[in-house]
Amino acid sequence: MRYDFASDNTAGMAPAALEGLAAANAGFARAYGSDEVTARAADLIRQRLDADAEIRFVFSGTAANAIALSMLARPFEAVLAHHAAHICTDETGAPAFFGQGIGLIGLPGFSGKIDPLALKAILQEPVVGHRQPPGALSVTQATEYGALYTEEELRHLIEPAKAAGLGVHMDGARLANAAAEGFDLTHIARLGVDALVFGGAKAGANCAEALVMFNRQLARRVDNRLKQAGQTASKTRLLSGPMLGLLDSGAWETGAAHANLMARRLAAGIEARSPYVLAHPVEANAVFIRMPDQDYAALNAAGWACYRFDDGSVRFVCSWASQEEAVDALIDAIATL
Amino acid sequence: MRYDFASDNTAGMAPAALEGLAAANAGFARAYGSDEVTARAADLIRQRLDADAEIRFVFSGTAANAIALSMLARPFEAVLAHHAAHICTDETGAPAFFGQGIGLIGLPGFSGKIDPLALKAILQEPVVGHRQPPGALSVTQATEYGALYTEEELRHLIEPAKAAGLGVHMDGARLANAAAEGFDLTHIARLGVDALVFGGAKAGANCAEALVMFNRQLARRVDNRLKQAGQTASKTRLLSGPMLGLLDSGAWETGAAHANLMARRLAAGIEARSPYVLAHPVEANAVFIRMPDQDYAALNAAGWACYRFDDGSVRFVCSWASQEEAVDALIDAIATL
Amino acid sequence: MRYDFASDNTAGMAPAALEGLAAANAGFARAYGSDEVTARAADLIRQRLDADAEIRFVFSGTAANAIALSMLARPFEAVLAHHAAHICTDETGAPAFFGQGIGLIGLPGFSGKIDPLALKAILQEPVVGHRQPPGALSVTQATEYGALYTEEELRHLIEPAKAAGLGVHMDGARLANAAAEGFDLTHIARLGVDALVFGGAKAGANCAEALVMFNRQLARRVDNRLKQAGQTASKTRLLSGPMLGLLDSGAWETGAAHANLMARRLAAGIEARSPYVLAHPVEANAVFIRMPDQDYAALNAAGWACYRFDDGSVRFVCSWASQEEAVDALIDAIATL
Amino acid sequence: MRYDFASDNTAGMAPAALEGLAAANAGFARAYGSDEVTARAADLIRQRLDADAEIRFVFSGTAANAIALSMLARPFEAVLAHHAAHICTDETGAPAFFGQGIGLIGLPGFSGKIDPLALKAILQEPVVGHRQPPGALSVTQATEYGALYTEEELRHLIEPAKAAGLGVHMDGARLANAAAEGFDLTHIARLGVDALVFGGAKAGANCAEALVMFNRQLARRVDNRLKQAGQTASKTRLLSGPMLGLLDSGAWETGAAHANLMARRLAAGIEARSPYVLAHPVEANAVFIRMPDQDYAALNAAGWACYRFDDGSVRFVCSWASQEEAVDALIDAIATL
Repeated sequence: MRYDFASDNTAGMAPAALEGLAAANAGFARAYGSDEVTARAADLIRQRLDADAEIRFVFSGTAANAIALSMLARPFEAVLAHHAAHICTDETGAPAFFGQGIGLIGLPGFSGKIDPLALKAILQEPVVGHRQPPGALSVTQATEYGALYTEEELRHLIEPAKAAGLGVHMDGARLANAAAEGFDLTHIARLGVDALVFGGAKAGANCAEALVMFNRQLARRVDNRLKQAGQTASKTRLLSGPMLGLLDSGAWETGAAHANLMARRLAAGIEARSPYVLAHPVEANAVFIRMPDQDYAALNAAGWACYRFDDGSVRFVCSWASQEEAVDALIDAIATL
Repeated sequence: MRYDFASDNTAGMAPAALEGLAAANAGFARAYGSDEVTARAADLIRQRLDADAEIRFVFSGTAANAIALSMLARPFEAVLAHHAAHICTDETGAPAFFGQGIGLIGLPGFSGKIDPLALKAILQEPVVGHRQPPGALSVTQATEYGALYTEEELRHLIEPAKAAGLGVHMDGARLANAAAEGFDLTHIARLGVDALVFGGAKAGANCAEALVMFNRQLARRVDNRLKQAGQTASKTRLLSGPMLGLLDSGAWETGAAHANLMARRLAAGIEARSPYVLAHPVEANAVFIRMPDQDYAALNAAGWACYRFDDGSVRFVCSWASQEEAVDALIDAIATL
Repeated sequence: MRYDFASDNTAGMAPAALEGLAAANAGFARAYGSDEVTARAADLIRQRLDADAEIRFVFSGTAANAIALSMLARPFEAVLAHHAAHICTDETGAPAFFGQGIGLIGLPGFSGKIDPLALKAILQEPVVGHRQPPGALSVTQATEYGALYTEEELRHLIEPAKAAGLGVHMDGARLANAAAEGFDLTHIARLGVDALVFGGAKAGANCAEALVMFNRQLARRVDNRLKQAGQTASKTRLLSGPMLGLLDSGAWETGAAHANLMARRLAAGIEARSPYVLAHPVEANAVFIRMPDQDYAALNAAGWACYRFDDGSVRFVCSWASQEEAVDALIDAIATL
Repeated sequence: MRYDFASDNTAGMAPAALEGLAAANAGFARAYGSDEVTARAADLIRQRLDADAEIRFVFSGTAANAIALSMLARPFEAVLAHHAAHICTDETGAPAFFGQGIGLIGLPGFSGKIDPLALKAILQEPVVGHRQPPGALSVTQATEYGALYTEEELRHLIEPAKAAGLGVHMDGARLANAAAEGFDLTHIARLGVDALVFGGAKAGANCAEALVMFNRQLARRVDNRLKQAGQTASKTRLLSGPMLGLLDSGAWETGAAHANLMARRLAAGIEARSPYVLAHPVEANAVFIRMPDQDYAALNAAGWACYRFDDGSVRFVCSWASQEEAVDALIDAIATL
């Protein structure tokens, strides 16, 4: 079975990350995030974002998202998110676990992007005691369906949310792919995002994400919060080291650019050589196509791992590690189903 | 500042772990723990324990302990543990967070080992509605104060606990140090431990611990449980790979044996050359001494990071990475305070 | 504003409940549920159900439901329920709060009754780590839309759920209305329901519901559980006394029968004298009608409190206290809108 | 068995409360706290406190305390309280349940009153990531051991706590007994208490306490919070009605004054006629005496229910319902052991 395109977490660490890890590993260092490697990695992220922020490195995107949301909403409130957002469909209820019952309200919209009219409608509903009113908005960049928000589109979601008193979270598991496609990271803070999960794993790091708190109040006693939640690394430099390697070398962006390029190549090949149509625009590193059950089964049987999503489409994901030959081989396999 | 002896998590990954990581990193692999590296690492742990068990690799000892306890006790029950156990003093209330209010009842005993009479006394108390009755027992091997339980001593705790219907958890963050000192790991399952945290980080791995469920019922839907709790690694092989490297090479034990040897050397040197007395027997990789505030401050000021513990003693910890020269230099520093 | 038909909790305690309270109130009694009044009330419930069960009296239906569900499902599992069930729409996420993240999966079906095919479909889905698999089924009798399940219909839901290993909860907030309509309460235990909330408040009690645990294992340390969850009454007799009054006198059923009768009278009057059609069958104490916004507003403006529900229909509820004259006055008001 | 002195919750509702309930019960009323009886009861409490405050009526002191604490401290923080406070010893870990892991740090002091030096010491400890730092202070008036804080004593606790950024909670389960003894309720808000539990049950109400939020920010979306936590009464007037009856008639204070008087009579009788000494000053409605096991057993065997407390003393509690003859009979029984 080939897992190249099953997800962007089937690849290992990128070379720059591995080098960053090896470099960070040398000698003794203070534990629990007080080391220099961690400080430098945080600095590089602040530079990328052109913003002041409190930053911590945690192990898992699920935890990072859920903890961020628990900073923004309370147990008797709900988070507004696209119904296909990772927090809604793939995190086993983590927001409610870390947030002691925080609710999720799924909103519609094309290709994982929240429809601003749907947001507006729910923000206008009166607060009643027997339901969980919105406490936060969560947006994903790039979206679960491989699309990108423009700055303008984000503004049309974030502004009304902030005006209604909501906190704003951005799931940036694939932020590198957005950045590689031209999304200006310095918009994030300026748009009013309160907490960002700055993706590492899918960008070639090990299991590490940076939790970025632009709103410093959220960071009060965050070290206690993370420790209690099992997200404090004793050897933090082993999380921040790979991230430092990726950021310092630029591989965070170049790896993502490669992934995006491979996705476009894959999409073009499928469109040119197969009957399957794209289910979503290919703006980042994923390709979703409409494919009947029989063909989907045949493709898996042919050794290409891939998954059918909630919208019925079949997903292929590229990463820093995707090889042109593999893309072409997959196109061949799809073309000859 | 020198952090060599501040803790056993100030060292990086051991060479065998780093090699295991690099080897595991190659190519594409199934995510979320379904890869072969993970399967092999789990097999080696089962071999070490000579027991069947469900095993998962998680990021943090705090999470591993708390999740194990949440399998054994319910929110309205309490965990019995030594009052100086890591879960009681150093995990920011994680058992109550992951366990939705699970209580902790601290028991006395020398050097971190629970006094069996204290356990007996509490097990005999009647259950009343307005308090949290015991639901689980937690033991730590080696203890927080660097002591070891014999098999016999563990039996005298575990048997009455099991007889009273309690689940049993073992915090094995320093299990390698116990094993290196002759503690037979195959006793653990036979004694009736239900869930073990098989330590990685302090034994030279990256941030990775193995959650070992001897009681298979505990493991029902454990993948959902871990995912929800932010402890599922997408690239699990990056956790299991280093563990595999340590276990396959024997470095898990030899590194710990080295750490223990260095601790004995340090203790002997302090005893021979300084006025400070040992606060606890040196049976694993830590040395605790009685030291006045002024001397403690002077030692830190001289550049040797170390910590005063709840019992008033000052702790030094050795690891796989401790060097003889460094031990001797620390002895010199202490001797000349 | 007239609240007669706004809900069945706008009425006070029924006379039999008030008498039961006054009787229970006399003299001193053991606290926390160990008193005789409480024992007798529990006996009468067991008689009604013709089943052995552990029974506790709690304050609120929301808590009773959520606590029952927390006995049946774990935080990383979900509860299957009709999408319009009270636990899904009117309890502010209580199941996730009391259940530390327990999910809710809303199923379709007419008039609040779960479609057995929808249940079957979800029970056949494979368990995957990144979602909350079903842990329990919740049914409501009478339903939120005033319909009744037959024994046969319940069997077609409960049997497959039990076969799939799920626990079964019944929300009986309006169980008296079902019983008054001929639903045989002795079916509940025989069908395999594990935990029942036996309704008090809507049947004329004060704020009191009985939590009935047919599955005695669920009741292990339930007194600790309830105390921790703030649902242990120090003066339990003040909860059980009114319930005893209702059950001993038969007013629990006769009050509900009166409520049902008034609902049918109301429905008949609306059908005969107004253009509005019924949205749901009138099988218990509620009447739902299709009514345009303008008429709905006019009716409220005319002083008759009522609510529009999620399905778009407007609800009127009768209770033990509903008066024939009031029903007729409401019919007049609706007929002359 | 006589339960007169076993606790102050073995008495039923006082006559004024029962009358208040009957009056509130008449007719139909808006549910969920929007009724007039509830508004009037809240007004009377605000008058007593001479302060603006958001007020809600909840079912249980355990829930009221835990919910108030969850407003003041976060899961990774701890509450400072006397080690014998009800929240520490008698609420089955409710603060950690409602507060998702909130810790409790027990402080010493005579007769349930926190020693200000102990408070000062803990407030000076540095915040470290691996422990739960203080987030709130909880004081109890009258204390669990029947003592009263003076305004001055409270100031010496509350001022440093507020200065350190902590929220302040007062458990007023027996506030009526303090008020009856001359404690000026208008001090509470002026001293800076953020949230008060204004006791009902022990003062002769049914199971009802008022949650008083002086800090209005705490009350944001409190109706959602209470509903989710199972503490919203559908028929709120049945909670507020008895409270209104007690407050409007003055029975809230006069009943407590009677209870205090009976406690003093009991204490005087025991001192005059038995060898047992008082363990705590008798400043409210409880009497604690030193009594050997044998005598304690004999007293219970003679039919007088009473309890031994954590400090080893035996407790008797008086209430609005205590009768002089009963007090004298108990004195006789104790004198002739």
